[in-house]
Amino acid sequence: MRIGVYPGTFDPITLGHMDIIARGAKLVDRLIIGVATNPSKSPLFTLEERVGHVQREAAHISNVEVVPFDALLMHFAEAQGASMIIRGLRAVADFEYEFQMAGMNQQLNSEIETVFLMADVALQPIASRLVKEIASYGGAIDKFVPTRVAAEVRDRIATNAEK
Amino acid sequence: MRIGVYPGTFDPITLGHMDIIARGAKLVDRLIIGVATNPSKSPLFTLEERVGHVQREAAHISNVEVVPFDALLMHFAEAQGASMIIRGLRAVADFEYEFQMAGMNQQLNSEIETVFLMADVALQPIASRLVKEIASYGGAIDKFVPTRVAAEVRDRIATNAEK
Amino acid sequence: MRIGVYPGTFDPITLGHMDIIARGAKLVDRLIIGVATNPSKSPLFTLEERVGHVQREAAHISNVEVVPFDALLMHFAEAQGASMIIRGLRAVADFEYEFQMAGMNQQLNSEIETVFLMADVALQPIASRLVKEIASYGGAIDKFVPTRVAAEVRDRIATNAEK
Amino acid sequence: MRIGVYPGTFDPITLGHMDIIARGAKLVDRLIIGVATNPSKSPLFTLEERVGHVQREAAHISNVEVVPFDALLMHFAEAQGASMIIRGLRAVADFEYEFQMAGMNQQLNSEIETVFLMADVALQPIASRLVKEIASYGGAIDKFVPTRVAAEVRDRIATNAEK
Amino acid sequence: MRIGVYPGTFDPITLGHMDIIARGAKLVDRLIIGVATNPSKSPLFTLEERVGHVQREAAHISNVEVVPFDALLMHFAEAQGASMIIRGLRAVADFEYEFQMAGMNQQLNSEIETVFLMADVALQPIASRLVKEIASYGGAIDKFVPTRVAAEVRDRIATNAEK
Amino acid sequence: MRIGVYPGTFDPITLGHMDIIARGAKLVDRLIIGVATNPSKSPLFTLEERVGHVQREAAHISNVEVVPFDALLMHFAEAQGASMIIRGLRAVADFEYEFQMAGMNQQLNSEIETVFLMADVALQPIASRLVKEIASYGGAIDKFVPTRVAAEVRDRIATNAEK
Repeated sequence: MRIGVYPGTFDPITLGHMDIIARGAKLVDRLIIGVATNPSKSPLFTLEERVGHVQREAAHISNVEVVPFDALLMHFAEAQGASMIIRGLRAVADFEYEFQMAGMNQQLNSEIETVFLMADVALQPIASRLVKEIASYGGAIDKFVPTRVAAEVRDRIATNAEK
Repeated sequence: MRIGVYPGTFDPITLGHMDIIARGAKLVDRLIIGVATNPSKSPLFTLEERVGHVQREAAHISNVEVVPFDALLMHFAEAQGASMIIRGLRAVADFEYEFQMAGMNQQLNSEIETVFLMADVALQPIASRLVKEIASYGGAIDKFVPTRVAAEVRDRIATNAEK
Repeated sequence: MRIGVYPGTFDPITLGHMDIIARGAKLVDRLIIGVATNPSKSPLFTLEERVGHVQREAAHISNVEVVPFDALLMHFAEAQGASMIIRGLRAVADFEYEFQMAGMNQQLNSEIETVFLMADVALQPIASRLVKEIASYGGAIDKFVPTRVAAEVRDRIATNAEK
Repeated sequence: MRIGVYPGTFDPITLGHMDIIARGAKLVDRLIIGVATNPSKSPLFTLEERVGHVQREAAHISNVEVVPFDALLMHFAEAQGASMIIRGLRAVADFEYEFQMAGMNQQLNSEIETVFLMADVALQPIASRLVKEIASYGGAIDKFVPTRVAAEVRDRIATNAEK
Repeated sequence: MRIGVYPGTFDPITLGHMDIIARGAKLVDRLIIGVATNPSKSPLFTLEERVGHVQREAAHISNVEVVPFDALLMHFAEAQGASMIIRGLRAVADFEYEFQMAGMNQQLNSEIETVFLMADVALQPIASRLVKEIASYGGAIDKFVPTRVAAEVRDRIATNAEK
Repeated sequence: MRIGVYPGTFDPITLGHMDIIARGAKLVDRLIIGVATNPSKSPLFTLEERVGHVQREAAHISNVEVVPFDALLMHFAEAQGASMIIRGLRAVADFEYEFQMAGMNQQLNSEIETVFLMADVALQPIASRLVKEIASYGGAIDKFVPTRVAAEVRDRIATNAEK
């Protein structure tokens, strides 16, 4: 059985992530979506919320499982029995960072392959960081994230603003 | 009447910005220079000071107006009746970020075009962040920013150091 | 009156070119589409055919004019009374080449500005060269070029193959 | 059964190609190495010779098959029943070209996924074109291609030089 | 006598840094390794510790001297009587930043040349930031930094975690 | 004695080349400018003419010598007793190609270091290929090449056109 890990912070999950999940799920028998804690980035949503969002939005894909993690990515992939780590590529800036990570990961465990997929070109400019920035100014984010996530981002930003 | 918006933080305004302003002003009937508040970047100069610097340095260009803004760039451009957003390109790193922004902005409002201009090649390495870094160590910044701005940066850094 | 020049070989004209033409036409009062002879590239279509294709496909945009040229781009732009040269940007590879050209063009005539526009992200991977390569192997090119152009490319490739 | 296609000209096959073949073979049940005819590039070795080299060098990997092709890559992948196309990434220049191809291929057949793998970092600078250039000047190519291929390249270049 | 300066934070010194030091030392009569204070980056090791690490690891190269500095790089290079600043290049992201810095440094002092060297390709993905991230999750860093530095990084991270 | 080799085709020598020569000559005791034959590029000027141009234009720099070569660059550098190969970097496209070459050259001879220098930013867009293209259309090239070379390029292009 081929197992793949697709790691991310998913704060929030975007249509670009959804596209990579759909593509990745076809490459393996079981796709583990690893949701990183990432407290240093002060995420908008808690780890539990983000795991819940990804589970709900990917519920229609049968061979996907969502697992939170707070570990070195390579250790997480080993613990899950994965033979590949799946990464979405959007642009050259991604590429550089990913190549550096993949190069060091080759040294950490040469048995687990990093596999790069390309999101649908129309979705490539979408970045979680920009989604949050747009929403914080009251801009429309419905074209960038799943419908329910868009509402959740708006609610959370409104709640934070009241504090 | 064609209106363009050239947004930035201008902390401080550099000769590279000045060059893009001069180029942009020729492309439109009215050029709105939008000065972003950007409190998260802890700017060296207050919003009022930065608006003042840009107004003074661009005073010789008749069709330029300087307007502060604290909003989504696309909303600001809409409010100003702009048909284009002008961005300066310096290097590939800029290009990547700008392309991602422009791609999302195409989704937000497809009527407002993002237009990229290239500063004079001799001015392309200039970045506000590096200007401040050089000045903080007592380096000469006169070749990078307008003369009066150079003095103001030096004064502010000296004042901050005394605190 | 603001005049812009959008130069290219248009062998064949693609949906990416069409998108840049539509965007460019809104930035100026009159948009001259300059069709370069480019004999060194052994184009699939003659200069007359390419001018014809562009004229037909852009006929619905009132302020567009199609003009063949066999000259230095900057001289052509000067002869047309243009104040800007419009270029479409797709990716970093384009960017590099365009920046080099624009940098030399700044030296040739600093009064004519090079302006970069970004095609709709979904159209960015389209390149005339790849369209011809796909068609030469009998692949479907209808998503990449205007409908009538797709038929013309197929016909020409079939005719050439018979020779 | 998951089938992948790894296309190339392999003129000659390098240690970088060998590395991608080994990595790709682990991702699928059957890996088809597609050797493109590419007459326009005037290859050093005939199609038959290149197929032979790849077969010999990859003989130790049980789930690999070598197939020549003279067709659109996407048509070849469809004919082989592949669900993925495997491409090696070395550097940003590759990335740009590959992204453009993959973007157009998404339009041609959205069911066949392009998957990018990264060769061992130590092998990334190796390019067939540079190997031939080095060999043509009598330089040592043993660190870049399999041992027998190195000898074959030297022999062919010597034979060509005599003509 | 030719003097070169190789500046960095060295938090911690990696095998990539070691490789550039070895290469740089051959280009000049005396190589000053400048260790920057960089308090804004909250380094893992104190300035004294980092100077100590670099001195110990480079002790076998006779024409190397390690000097801490808290100044503009160009002023430091001038004070050391250097005619060149040596920088290691790993990837395009580095390149962009370095080019911007070098461009501004050409303006600050055109007599001191910035010289770029390329680390051994196998060492290029190594970055101090990623080494610390891997170590913070208990990953093995022995392939990325000198042996004694690996132990020191592990000890410091363990000590910090106890606080 | 430190010897460096600066290789190129110099068809024609540009102000960008001149700038790298001046910078490179300060880094070594003796700078060998290697002029490559490059018949495959059908140069505008013969090897003898190009050697003559470089000698004349660099005559004011005492430690420079001009040597034609038709060999592998690394073999030429070895034959000249060089310890470094000097390359000018202009942009990311250059960088990619140069990195690939330098990576293979590290394997061919690890004792000869490739050293990258950055031309004056104002000269970075200049490329011999574009200079010839501009001149072939009667454009002014005086800002891109030495004065006498500009005349020689114009004369040669006029002579070729008469044929």
